[in-house]
Amino acid sequence: MTPKSKNRKIEHGNAGQNGAPKIPQPTIERMSAYLQCVRGLIADGVATASSTEIAHSTGINAAQFRKDLSYFGEFGTPGLGYDVHELEAHLARIMGLDEARDVVLVGAGNLGAALSSYLGFPERGFRVVAVFDNDVKKVGEKLAGHAIHHINDIGKVNALLGAQVAVVAVPRAAAQEAVDKLVAAGVLAILNFAPTAILVRPGITVRNVDLTSEMEVLSYYLRAK
Amino acid sequence: MTPKSKNRKIEHGNAGQNGAPKIPQPTIERMSAYLQCVRGLIADGVATASSTEIAHSTGINAAQFRKDLSYFGEFGTPGLGYDVHELEAHLARIMGLDEARDVVLVGAGNLGAALSSYLGFPERGFRVVAVFDNDVKKVGEKLAGHAIHHINDIGKVNALLGAQVAVVAVPRAAAQEAVDKLVAAGVLAILNFAPTAILVRPGITVRNVDLTSEMEVLSYYLRAK
Repeated sequence: MTPKSKNRKIEHGNAGQNGAPKIPQPTIERMSAYLQCVRGLIADGVATASSTEIAHSTGINAAQFRKDLSYFGEFGTPGLGYDVHELEAHLARIMGLDEARDVVLVGAGNLGAALSSYLGFPERGFRVVAVFDNDVKKVGEKLAGHAIHHINDIGKVNALLGAQVAVVAVPRAAAQEAVDKLVAAGVLAILNFAPTAILVRPGITVRNVDLTSEMEVLSYYLRAK
Repeated sequence: MTPKSKNRKIEHGNAGQNGAPKIPQPTIERMSAYLQCVRGLIADGVATASSTEIAHSTGINAAQFRKDLSYFGEFGTPGLGYDVHELEAHLARIMGLDEARDVVLVGAGNLGAALSSYLGFPERGFRVVAVFDNDVKKVGEKLAGHAIHHINDIGKVNALLGAQVAVVAVPRAAAQEAVDKLVAAGVLAILNFAPTAILVRPGITVRNVDLTSEMEVLSYYLRAK
Protein backbone atom coordinates (compact mmCIF):
# COMPACT_ATOMS: atom_id res chain seq x y z
CA MET A 1 0.00 0.00 0.00
CA THR A 2 1.25 3.44 -0.84
CA PRO A 3 1.76 5.78 2.13
CA LYS A 4 -0.96 8.37 2.33
CA SER A 5 -0.19 12.03 2.89
CA LYS A 6 -2.65 14.45 4.42
CA ASN A 7 -3.06 16.27 1.15
CA ARG A 8 -4.13 13.27 -0.82
CA LYS A 9 -7.17 11.16 -0.60
CA ILE A 10 -8.52 8.15 -2.37
CA GLU A 11 -10.97 9.21 -5.04
CA HIS A 12 -13.82 6.88 -5.80
CA GLY A 13 -15.07 8.90 -8.70
CA ASN A 14 -16.77 11.38 -6.42
CA ALA A 15 -15.58 14.76 -7.43
CA GLY A 16 -17.06 16.96 -4.73
CA GLN A 17 -15.11 19.98 -5.93
CA ASN A 18 -15.54 23.21 -4.05
CA GLY A 19 -18.19 25.32 -5.62
CA ALA A 20 -19.48 22.61 -7.97
CA PRO A 21 -23.23 22.12 -7.76
CA LYS A 22 -24.20 19.23 -5.52
CA ILE A 23 -25.51 16.89 -8.14
CA PRO A 24 -25.42 13.22 -7.18
CA GLN A 25 -22.85 11.25 -9.09
CA PRO A 26 -25.41 8.58 -10.12
CA THR A 27 -27.34 11.41 -11.80
CA ILE A 28 -24.25 12.29 -13.82
CA GLU A 29 -23.81 8.65 -14.79
CA ARG A 30 -27.45 8.41 -15.85
CA MET A 31 -27.12 11.62 -17.89
CA SER A 32 -24.60 9.78 -20.01
CA ALA A 33 -27.06 6.88 -20.42
CA TYR A 34 -29.83 9.29 -21.49
CA LEU A 35 -27.48 10.88 -23.98
CA GLN A 36 -26.63 7.50 -25.45
CA CYS A 37 -30.32 6.66 -25.70
CA VAL A 38 -31.15 9.96 -27.38
CA ARG A 39 -28.34 9.46 -29.90
CA GLY A 40 -29.82 6.07 -30.68
CA LEU A 41 -33.24 7.67 -31.25
CA ILE A 42 -31.68 10.26 -33.56
CA ALA A 43 -29.88 7.49 -35.47
CA ASP A 44 -33.27 5.75 -35.82
CA GLY A 45 -34.81 8.91 -37.28
CA VAL A 46 -37.04 9.62 -34.28
CA ALA A 47 -37.95 13.33 -33.89
CA THR A 48 -39.63 13.48 -30.49
CA ALA A 49 -39.75 11.15 -27.51
CA SER A 50 -41.60 11.16 -24.19
CA SER A 51 -39.80 10.69 -20.90
CA THR A 52 -41.51 7.28 -20.71
CA GLU A 53 -40.01 6.26 -24.04
CA ILE A 54 -36.55 7.41 -23.00
CA ALA A 55 -36.93 5.70 -19.66
CA HIS A 56 -37.98 2.46 -21.35
CA SER A 57 -34.94 2.48 -23.62
CA THR A 58 -32.50 3.11 -20.79
CA GLY A 59 -34.12 0.86 -18.22
CA ILE A 60 -34.43 3.85 -15.87
CA ASN A 61 -37.89 5.00 -14.81
CA ALA A 62 -39.49 8.14 -16.22
CA ALA A 63 -39.76 9.94 -12.85
CA GLN A 64 -36.04 9.44 -12.27
CA PHE A 65 -35.28 10.79 -15.73
CA ARG A 66 -37.36 13.92 -15.13
CA LYS A 67 -35.81 14.39 -11.69
CA ASP A 68 -32.28 14.02 -13.04
CA LEU A 69 -32.98 16.50 -15.81
CA SER A 70 -34.51 18.99 -13.35
CA TYR A 71 -31.13 19.43 -11.62
CA PHE A 72 -30.05 21.38 -14.66
CA GLY A 73 -32.96 23.76 -14.91
CA GLU A 74 -36.21 23.60 -16.83
CA PHE A 75 -36.22 21.86 -20.14
CA GLY A 76 -38.99 20.73 -22.47
CA THR A 77 -42.72 21.36 -22.38
CA PRO A 78 -44.89 19.09 -20.20
CA GLY A 79 -47.07 16.78 -22.27
CA LEU A 80 -45.33 17.50 -25.57
CA GLY A 81 -42.42 15.09 -25.35
CA TYR A 82 -38.85 16.08 -26.07
CA ASP A 83 -37.41 17.20 -29.35
CA VAL A 84 -34.60 14.65 -29.46
CA HIS A 85 -32.14 16.94 -31.24
CA GLU A 86 -32.67 19.68 -28.66
CA LEU A 87 -32.43 17.15 -25.86
CA GLU A 88 -29.19 15.77 -27.30
CA ALA A 89 -27.67 19.26 -27.44
CA HIS A 90 -28.91 20.04 -23.93
CA LEU A 91 -27.43 16.83 -22.46
CA ALA A 92 -24.16 17.25 -24.36
CA ARG A 93 -23.82 20.81 -23.06
CA ILE A 94 -24.48 19.68 -19.48
CA MET A 95 -21.81 17.01 -19.82
CA GLY A 96 -19.30 19.47 -21.25
CA LEU A 97 -19.29 17.60 -24.55
CA ASP A 98 -19.89 20.68 -26.67
CA GLU A 99 -16.12 21.07 -26.90
CA ALA A 100 -13.56 18.46 -27.94
CA ARG A 101 -11.29 17.08 -25.20
CA ASP A 102 -7.64 16.24 -25.75
CA VAL A 103 -6.59 13.07 -23.98
CA VAL A 104 -3.14 11.79 -23.08
CA LEU A 105 -2.68 8.06 -22.71
CA VAL A 106 -0.16 6.48 -20.36
CA GLY A 107 0.76 2.86 -21.04
CA ALA A 108 1.65 1.64 -24.51
CA GLY A 109 0.82 -2.03 -23.82
CA ASN A 110 -2.03 -4.10 -25.23
CA LEU A 111 -4.74 -2.27 -23.36
CA GLY A 112 -3.23 1.11 -24.22
CA ALA A 113 -3.11 0.10 -27.88
CA ALA A 114 -6.77 -0.86 -27.82
CA LEU A 115 -7.81 2.32 -26.03
CA SER A 116 -5.77 4.62 -28.25
CA SER A 117 -7.63 3.35 -31.26
CA TYR A 118 -10.96 2.90 -29.51
CA LEU A 119 -13.55 4.30 -31.84
CA GLY A 120 -15.85 5.47 -29.09
CA PHE A 121 -13.50 8.21 -28.03
CA PRO A 122 -13.11 10.44 -31.12
CA GLU A 123 -16.75 9.76 -32.06
CA ARG A 124 -17.78 11.61 -28.92
CA GLY A 125 -15.17 14.33 -28.90
CA PHE A 126 -12.30 12.66 -27.05
CA ARG A 127 -9.08 12.66 -29.02
CA VAL A 128 -5.86 10.96 -27.94
CA VAL A 129 -3.09 13.50 -28.58
CA ALA A 130 -0.06 11.82 -26.99
CA VAL A 131 1.06 8.47 -25.63
CA PHE A 132 3.51 7.90 -22.77
CA ASP A 133 5.26 4.86 -21.35
CA ASN A 134 7.96 4.25 -18.77
CA ASP A 135 9.80 1.79 -21.02
CA VAL A 136 12.66 3.63 -22.77
CA LYS A 137 12.68 0.92 -25.46
CA LYS A 138 9.21 1.98 -26.58
CA VAL A 139 10.07 5.69 -26.79
CA GLY A 140 10.02 6.88 -30.40
CA GLU A 141 7.87 3.95 -31.56
CA LYS A 142 4.30 4.61 -32.60
CA LEU A 143 1.04 3.50 -31.05
CA ALA A 144 -2.02 3.95 -33.26
CA GLY A 145 -0.21 6.75 -35.09
CA HIS A 146 1.06 8.55 -31.99
CA ALA A 147 4.75 8.79 -31.13
CA ILE A 148 5.43 7.26 -27.72
CA HIS A 149 7.09 9.64 -25.25
CA HIS A 150 8.79 8.74 -22.00
CA ILE A 151 6.56 9.37 -18.99
CA ASN A 152 9.27 11.58 -17.49
CA ASP A 153 8.75 13.98 -20.40
CA ILE A 154 5.06 14.47 -19.73
CA GLY A 155 5.53 17.88 -18.11
CA LYS A 156 7.41 19.19 -21.12
CA VAL A 157 5.07 17.60 -23.69
CA ASN A 158 1.86 18.59 -21.94
CA ALA A 159 3.06 22.16 -21.50
CA LEU A 160 2.60 22.32 -25.28
CA LEU A 161 -0.56 20.20 -25.53
CA GLY A 162 -2.45 21.34 -22.45
CA ALA A 163 -4.46 18.14 -22.19
CA GLN A 164 -6.61 17.95 -19.06
CA VAL A 165 -7.78 14.36 -19.45
CA ALA A 166 -5.68 11.22 -19.16
CA VAL A 167 -6.25 7.51 -19.57
CA VAL A 168 -3.99 5.35 -17.40
CA ALA A 169 -3.45 1.82 -18.75
CA VAL A 170 -0.36 0.72 -16.85
CA PRO A 171 0.26 -2.18 -14.44
CA ARG A 172 -0.84 -1.74 -10.84
CA ALA A 173 2.70 -1.05 -9.59
CA ALA A 174 3.25 1.82 -12.03
CA ALA A 175 -0.12 3.50 -11.61
CA GLN A 176 0.42 5.90 -8.71
CA GLU A 177 3.66 7.27 -10.13
CA ALA A 178 2.04 7.77 -13.54
CA VAL A 179 -0.88 9.59 -11.93
CA ASP A 180 1.41 11.83 -9.86
CA LYS A 181 3.27 12.83 -13.03
CA LEU A 182 0.03 13.46 -14.89
CA VAL A 183 -1.32 15.68 -12.13
CA ALA A 184 1.98 17.58 -11.94
CA ALA A 185 1.69 18.10 -15.71
CA GLY A 186 -1.74 19.74 -15.36
CA VAL A 187 -4.10 16.82 -15.92
CA LEU A 188 -7.36 17.25 -13.98
CA ALA A 189 -9.36 14.15 -14.86
CA ILE A 190 -8.15 10.57 -15.09
CA LEU A 191 -9.70 7.35 -16.30
CA ASN A 192 -7.72 4.67 -14.48
CA PHE A 193 -7.59 1.07 -15.72
CA ALA A 194 -4.91 -0.06 -13.26
CA PRO A 195 -6.57 -2.33 -10.68
CA THR A 196 -5.52 -0.27 -7.68
CA ALA A 197 -6.81 2.67 -5.67
CA ILE A 198 -5.18 5.89 -6.78
CA LEU A 199 -4.44 8.77 -4.42
CA VAL A 200 -4.94 12.30 -5.71
CA ARG A 201 -5.32 15.71 -4.17
CA PRO A 202 -8.79 17.28 -3.98
CA GLY A 203 -9.83 18.84 -7.25
CA ILE A 204 -8.61 15.95 -9.37
CA THR A 205 -11.28 13.57 -10.66
CA VAL A 206 -10.50 9.88 -11.02
CA ARG A 207 -12.79 7.23 -12.52
CA ASN A 208 -11.63 3.69 -11.95
CA VAL A 209 -12.41 0.96 -14.45
CA ASP A 210 -11.34 -2.29 -12.85
CA LEU A 211 -12.04 -4.96 -15.43
CA THR A 212 -11.14 -7.79 -13.11
CA SER A 213 -13.48 -6.44 -10.48
CA GLU A 214 -16.25 -6.49 -13.09
CA MET A 215 -15.43 -10.14 -13.75
CA GLU A 216 -15.48 -10.87 -10.03
CA VAL A 217 -18.95 -9.36 -9.71
CA LEU A 218 -20.10 -11.56 -12.60
CA SER A 219 -18.54 -14.52 -10.83
CA TYR A 220 -20.58 -13.76 -7.72
CA TYR A 221 -23.82 -13.87 -9.67
CA LEU A 222 -22.76 -17.08 -11.44
CA ARG A 223 -22.11 -18.67 -8.08
CA ALA A 224 -25.58 -17.64 -6.89
CA LYS A 225 -27.27 -19.27 -9.90
CA MET B 1 -33.57 0.67 -30.89
CA THR B 2 -34.03 -3.07 -30.82
CA PRO B 3 -37.61 -4.24 -30.31
CA LYS B 4 -38.23 -5.56 -26.85
CA SER B 5 -40.06 -8.83 -26.26
CA LYS B 6 -41.93 -9.60 -23.08
CA ASN B 7 -39.38 -12.21 -22.07
CA ARG B 8 -36.40 -9.93 -22.18
CA LYS B 9 -35.46 -6.95 -20.13
CA ILE B 10 -32.64 -4.50 -20.00
CA GLU B 11 -30.14 -5.59 -17.41
CA HIS B 12 -28.29 -2.90 -15.54
CA GLY B 13 -26.05 -5.30 -13.74
CA ASN B 14 -28.77 -6.14 -11.22
CA ALA B 15 -29.08 -9.86 -11.16
CA GLY B 16 -32.09 -10.37 -8.93
CA GLN B 17 -32.21 -14.09 -9.68
CA ASN B 18 -34.96 -16.11 -8.08
CA GLY B 19 -33.81 -17.62 -4.84
CA ALA B 20 -30.55 -15.65 -4.66
CA PRO B 21 -30.06 -13.85 -1.35
CA LYS B 22 -31.08 -10.20 -1.53
CA ILE B 23 -27.67 -8.65 -1.19
CA PRO B 24 -27.38 -5.12 -2.57
CA GLN B 25 -25.33 -4.93 -5.72
CA PRO B 26 -23.11 -2.14 -4.29
CA THR B 27 -22.20 -4.59 -1.52
CA ILE B 28 -21.04 -7.10 -4.13
CA GLU B 29 -19.01 -4.39 -5.85
CA ARG B 30 -17.41 -3.36 -2.57
CA MET B 31 -16.60 -7.01 -1.77
CA SER B 32 -14.39 -6.98 -4.84
CA ALA B 33 -12.69 -3.78 -3.58
CA TYR B 34 -12.08 -5.36 -0.17
CA LEU B 35 -10.62 -8.41 -1.84
CA GLN B 36 -8.27 -6.24 -3.87
CA CYS B 37 -7.23 -4.40 -0.72
CA VAL B 38 -6.61 -7.62 1.20
CA ARG B 39 -4.51 -9.00 -1.67
CA GLY B 40 -2.44 -5.83 -1.50
CA LEU B 41 -1.96 -6.31 2.25
CA ILE B 42 -0.86 -9.92 1.68
CA ALA B 43 1.58 -8.77 -1.03
CA ASP B 44 2.96 -6.25 1.49
CA GLY B 45 3.53 -9.05 4.04
CA VAL B 46 0.80 -7.86 6.42
CA ALA B 47 -0.64 -10.65 8.60
CA THR B 48 -3.62 -9.01 10.31
CA ALA B 49 -5.62 -5.87 9.65
CA SER B 50 -8.46 -4.10 11.43
CA SER B 51 -11.65 -3.09 9.66
CA THR B 52 -10.47 0.51 10.04
CA GLU B 53 -7.25 -0.27 8.19
CA ILE B 54 -9.09 -2.05 5.40
CA ALA B 55 -11.61 0.77 5.22
CA HIS B 56 -8.82 3.36 4.98
CA SER B 57 -7.14 1.52 2.11
CA THR B 58 -10.34 1.16 0.13
CA GLY B 59 -11.79 4.58 0.87
CA ILE B 60 -14.91 2.92 2.29
CA ASN B 61 -15.77 3.42 5.95
CA ALA B 62 -15.25 0.69 8.54
CA ALA B 63 -18.92 0.42 9.53
CA GLN B 64 -19.86 -0.17 5.89
CA PHE B 65 -17.18 -2.82 5.58
CA ARG B 66 -18.47 -4.67 8.65
CA LYS B 67 -22.05 -4.38 7.45
CA ASP B 68 -21.18 -5.69 3.99
CA LEU B 69 -19.29 -8.62 5.48
CA SER B 70 -22.18 -9.41 7.85
CA TYR B 71 -24.44 -10.29 4.88
CA PHE B 72 -22.38 -13.43 4.51
CA GLY B 73 -22.49 -14.65 8.09
CA GLU B 74 -20.17 -14.12 11.02
CA PHE B 75 -16.51 -13.78 10.30
CA GLY B 76 -13.57 -12.70 12.45
CA THR B 77 -13.34 -11.99 16.17
CA PRO B 78 -14.32 -8.50 17.41
CA GLY B 79 -11.31 -6.52 18.60
CA LEU B 80 -8.70 -8.89 17.16
CA GLY B 81 -8.52 -7.67 13.58
CA TYR B 82 -8.73 -9.96 10.59
CA ASP B 83 -6.24 -12.60 9.60
CA VAL B 84 -5.73 -11.33 6.04
CA HIS B 85 -5.16 -14.79 4.54
CA GLU B 86 -8.39 -16.08 6.08
CA LEU B 87 -10.20 -12.95 4.99
CA GLU B 88 -8.88 -13.31 1.45
CA ALA B 89 -10.10 -16.93 1.28
CA HIS B 90 -13.47 -15.92 2.79
CA LEU B 91 -14.00 -13.09 0.30
CA ALA B 92 -12.85 -15.22 -2.65
CA ARG B 93 -15.28 -17.97 -1.66
CA ILE B 94 -18.15 -15.49 -1.38
CA MET B 95 -17.35 -14.16 -4.84
CA GLY B 96 -17.18 -17.64 -6.34
CA LEU B 97 -13.48 -17.18 -7.08
CA ASP B 98 -12.42 -20.42 -5.46
CA GLU B 99 -12.87 -22.08 -8.84
CA ALA B 100 -11.45 -21.01 -12.20
CA ARG B 101 -13.89 -19.58 -14.75
CA ASP B 102 -13.63 -20.24 -18.45
CA VAL B 103 -14.40 -17.19 -20.54
CA VAL B 104 -15.34 -16.89 -24.20
CA LEU B 105 -14.53 -13.65 -25.96
CA VAL B 106 -16.59 -12.26 -28.83
CA GLY B 107 -14.89 -9.63 -30.98
CA ALA B 108 -11.38 -10.10 -32.34
CA GLY B 109 -10.70 -6.40 -32.83
CA ASN B 110 -8.30 -4.14 -30.94
CA LEU B 111 -10.24 -4.18 -27.71
CA GLY B 112 -10.75 -7.94 -27.94
CA ALA B 113 -7.02 -8.41 -28.49
CA ALA B 114 -6.23 -6.34 -25.42
CA LEU B 115 -8.80 -8.14 -23.29
CA SER B 116 -7.76 -11.62 -24.42
CA SER B 117 -4.25 -10.97 -23.18
CA TYR B 118 -5.27 -8.84 -20.21
CA LEU B 119 -3.17 -10.02 -17.32
CA GLY B 120 -5.77 -9.31 -14.71
CA PHE B 121 -8.00 -12.10 -15.91
CA PRO B 122 -5.89 -15.29 -15.52
CA GLU B 123 -4.27 -13.85 -12.39
CA ARG B 124 -7.66 -14.00 -10.72
CA GLY B 125 -8.94 -17.24 -12.20
CA PHE B 126 -10.56 -16.03 -15.43
CA ARG B 127 -9.20 -17.80 -18.46
CA VAL B 128 -10.13 -17.00 -22.06
CA VAL B 129 -10.76 -20.37 -23.74
CA ALA B 130 -12.14 -19.33 -27.13
CA VAL B 131 -12.48 -16.28 -29.37
CA PHE B 132 -15.32 -15.57 -31.79
CA ASP B 133 -15.91 -12.97 -34.48
CA ASN B 134 -18.53 -12.41 -37.19
CA ASP B 135 -15.88 -11.66 -39.83
CA VAL B 136 -15.27 -14.82 -41.87
CA LYS B 137 -11.88 -13.44 -42.93
CA LYS B 138 -10.67 -13.62 -39.31
CA VAL B 139 -11.80 -17.22 -38.80
CA GLY B 140 -8.81 -19.54 -38.41
CA GLU B 141 -6.49 -16.69 -37.46
CA LYS B 142 -5.21 -16.47 -33.91
CA LEU B 143 -5.81 -13.88 -31.23
CA ALA B 144 -3.43 -14.06 -28.29
CA GLY B 145 -2.91 -17.74 -28.98
CA HIS B 146 -6.59 -18.61 -29.46
CA ALA B 147 -8.00 -19.74 -32.81
CA ILE B 148 -10.78 -17.40 -33.91
CA HIS B 149 -14.10 -19.15 -34.57
CA HIS B 150 -17.09 -17.76 -36.41
CA ILE B 151 -19.78 -16.50 -34.04
CA ASN B 152 -22.28 -18.80 -35.75
CA ASP B 153 -20.28 -21.77 -34.45
CA ILE B 154 -20.53 -20.74 -30.82
CA GLY B 155 -23.21 -23.30 -30.00
CA LYS B 156 -21.10 -26.14 -31.35
CA VAL B 157 -17.85 -24.89 -29.78
CA ASN B 158 -19.34 -24.08 -26.40
CA ALA B 159 -21.09 -27.44 -26.24
CA LEU B 160 -17.55 -28.78 -25.82
CA LEU B 161 -16.17 -25.96 -23.65
CA GLY B 162 -19.13 -25.26 -21.40
CA ALA B 163 -18.03 -21.68 -20.67
CA GLN B 164 -20.60 -19.70 -18.67
CA VAL B 165 -18.89 -16.31 -18.86
CA ALA B 166 -18.42 -14.16 -21.95
CA VAL B 167 -16.76 -10.88 -22.76
CA VAL B 168 -18.41 -8.95 -25.60
CA ALA B 169 -16.08 -6.53 -27.38
CA VAL B 170 -17.93 -5.89 -30.62
CA PRO B 171 -19.34 -2.71 -32.18
CA ARG B 172 -22.68 -1.45 -30.94
CA ALA B 173 -24.58 -2.76 -33.97
CA ALA B 174 -23.32 -6.33 -33.49
CA ALA B 175 -23.77 -6.54 -29.74
CA GLN B 176 -27.35 -7.78 -29.34
CA GLU B 177 -26.92 -10.54 -31.91
CA ALA B 178 -23.69 -11.66 -30.26
CA VAL B 179 -25.35 -11.74 -26.86
CA ASP B 180 -28.35 -13.69 -28.17
CA LYS B 181 -26.00 -16.32 -29.61
CA LEU B 182 -23.99 -16.47 -26.39
CA VAL B 183 -27.09 -16.98 -24.29
CA ALA B 184 -28.37 -19.65 -26.68
CA ALA B 185 -24.98 -21.36 -26.28
CA GLY B 186 -25.33 -21.55 -22.51
CA VAL B 187 -23.52 -18.41 -21.36
CA LEU B 188 -25.00 -17.02 -18.12
CA ALA B 189 -22.86 -13.97 -17.38
CA ILE B 190 -21.66 -11.31 -19.81
CA LEU B 191 -19.25 -8.43 -19.53
CA ASN B 192 -20.37 -6.08 -22.31
CA PHE B 193 -18.05 -3.42 -23.72
CA ALA B 194 -20.36 -2.42 -26.57
CA PRO B 195 -21.80 1.02 -25.78
CA THR B 196 -25.41 -0.05 -25.98
CA ALA B 197 -28.08 -1.49 -23.69
CA ILE B 198 -28.32 -5.25 -24.08
CA LEU B 199 -31.56 -7.15 -23.68
CA VAL B 200 -31.44 -10.52 -21.98
CA ARG B 201 -33.94 -12.83 -20.35
CA PRO B 202 -34.12 -12.98 -16.55
CA GLY B 203 -31.43 -15.18 -15.09
CA ILE B 204 -28.68 -13.84 -17.33
CA THR B 205 -26.32 -11.32 -15.70
CA VAL B 206 -24.89 -8.48 -17.76
CA ARG B 207 -22.29 -5.96 -16.60
CA ASN B 208 -21.83 -3.04 -18.93
CA VAL B 209 -18.49 -1.29 -19.23
CA ASP B 210 -19.07 1.79 -21.37
CA LEU B 211 -15.69 3.44 -21.72
CA THR B 212 -17.07 6.46 -23.52
CA SER B 213 -19.63 6.98 -20.80
CA GLU B 214 -16.77 6.99 -18.28
CA MET B 215 -15.07 9.68 -20.36
CA GLU B 216 -18.30 11.66 -20.49
CA VAL B 217 -18.60 11.61 -16.72
CA LEU B 218 -15.00 12.87 -16.49
CA SER B 219 -15.92 15.58 -18.96
CA TYR B 220 -18.77 16.71 -16.72
CA TYR B 221 -16.43 17.17 -13.77
CA LEU B 222 -13.90 18.98 -15.94
CA ARG B 223 -16.60 21.36 -17.07
CA ALA B 224 -17.52 22.04 -13.43
CA LYS B 225 -13.93 22.93 -12.52
